[in-house]
Amino acid sequence: MAATLLQGDKLASQIKDALRKDIEDLKAKGVRPHLVAVQVGENAASRVYIRQQQKACEEIGIAYELKELPDSTTQDEVLSFIEQLNQDQAVTGIILMMPLPKDLDAREVQMKISPDKDVEGMHPANMGRLIYGEMGLAPCTAHAAVELLKSTGVELKGKEVVVVGHSEIVGKPLALMLLSSQMDSPTPTVCHIATRDLTSHTKRADIVFVAVGKPGLIKADMVKDGVVVIDIGINRVPVTDASGNPVLNEKGKPKKKTVGDVDFETVKEKASVITPVPGGVGPMTTTMLLYNTVESAKRIAARK
Amino acid sequence: MAATLLQGDKLASQIKDALRKDIEDLKAKGVRPHLVAVQVGENAASRVYIRQQQKACEEIGIAYELKELPDSTTQDEVLSFIEQLNQDQAVTGIILMMPLPKDLDAREVQMKISPDKDVEGMHPANMGRLIYGEMGLAPCTAHAAVELLKSTGVELKGKEVVVVGHSEIVGKPLALMLLSSQMDSPTPTVCHIATRDLTSHTKRADIVFVAVGKPGLIKADMVKDGVVVIDIGINRVPVTDASGNPVLNEKGKPKKKTVGDVDFETVKEKASVITPVPGGVGPMTTTMLLYNTVESAKRIAARK
Repeated sequence: MAATLLQGDKLASQIKDALRKDIEDLKAKGVRPHLVAVQVGENAASRVYIRQQQKACEEIGIAYELKELPDSTTQDEVLSFIEQLNQDQAVTGIILMMPLPKDLDAREVQMKISPDKDVEGMHPANMGRLIYGEMGLAPCTAHAAVELLKSTGVELKGKEVVVVGHSEIVGKPLALMLLSSQMDSPTPTVCHIATRDLTSHTKRADIVFVAVGKPGLIKADMVKDGVVVIDIGINRVPVTDASGNPVLNEKGKPKKKTVGDVDFETVKEKASVITPVPGGVGPMTTTMLLYNTVESAKRIAARK
Repeated sequence: MAATLLQGDKLASQIKDALRKDIEDLKAKGVRPHLVAVQVGENAASRVYIRQQQKACEEIGIAYELKELPDSTTQDEVLSFIEQLNQDQAVTGIILMMPLPKDLDAREVQMKISPDKDVEGMHPANMGRLIYGEMGLAPCTAHAAVELLKSTGVELKGKEVVVVGHSEIVGKPLALMLLSSQMDSPTPTVCHIATRDLTSHTKRADIVFVAVGKPGLIKADMVKDGVVVIDIGINRVPVTDASGNPVLNEKGKPKKKTVGDVDFETVKEKASVITPVPGGVGPMTTTMLLYNTVESAKRIAARK
């Protein structure tokens, strides 16, 4: 049996349609969602994200602005820049592009962003609300993965869910989100690098989430028939030909492709539902950033 | 094999000794920890807690003050009373006695307490810090249970831990605390009322935490030999004689005793370590309240 492919773009476009309406409603109240991305120094990877974010924002009517600070900016300067954005009434959301230059304390800068403008849902005040079942401004990737699972209509109550990866930004909040309903929660287990026998867990799971950053980590013999697999990993790996040799691109460099943490070709034969990478959780993650940006604008509008 | 009894009083008294020193240091900086308990209306059960708290505070040099508001107090009045305490420089910690009269929104009042004075560690801003591995002002009972486990010297890395109960104030924060180390974390599973097969989880566990409020929930045939059992339940049950009849007290009413969620007499024969109830987690919980009260006074002193 080949699995149903759980692609993110359909749900993403439904959510975007709802957000367009919310943005119209906000306009009537005199508020326009306005996201500011802060980039310190130069970084090729974050340029890609910035273009994606800008396109996605403009598509649904969110103002997007990039603020660039030089590589030489000090910690205090970044902090006071963030504080200005916190105070600026016209700015409804702030996103800090990572990584920051090495000599800056990224955590401190991240935590300086006002919880109300924290569209990535990383501030402890937003994370803590997850314990109380509130998903207002939740971490985008974890939220994307949960919404994608819910869109399948799979009942969660009484299900065994295994989360592989215990990162602060995905694994831990994901476990809290899964526990958010008093009666209809699945039973989550959080596995990670120190887990003694990963297979014993993934094999008994009805649903597996993976967010580790290790291509091919989850193989077909590690899951049971009919499992639902949500692959959150994003890895760049070399493309190889039939004999395993690297394929070169037109510039003569090894050609690369994006894969997840799951050995997709074999696991899809056993799973009932599986997310592809790219095209699964990815499109939903950017959408949840838009969702949070509209959510933070709503909070600000409610105070007016 | 009978289990080692893991009693809370020894560790509690070590922590209290350390707190006495901290309080001396704070005195040198002109700060005295000052805990205010807020009681709205009358409640017999919270009287018991208030006496316990007062005694424990005075024992180590924390000023303890009880503020009583009448049963007729409105939501707005309670909120503005809390706000006054938040602003009062002499008050370093606030604890809200539960339950509040039925027509008040207890959650809203609880969340009104400034995170810096939130000695119960219940504010989302404090809960959220648990995701980042920071246990500054952590929920007392969950923190007590984890500290008690750590005091045994049992290695956690690679261990299977099952938490039974997914409450906001114990089960969920406990799971986050167990995941707090990047490399040395155990693998936690959070079971609860909707879990399909509780025994399949408790039976594979190296360590079991129970916080449900159901006497006799965990029986000997549900755990493996050598398990470590931390019983967080507190239940009042009737005392019965050998033939199962209720024993009466001098007033002719059914005599009661306190038990946990574990069928202690049988499970202690299989476990390697077990906490008694009363005398296990209980004494540590009040101690972690003192710990938090000193911690919040330290935060306030650091700002001076």
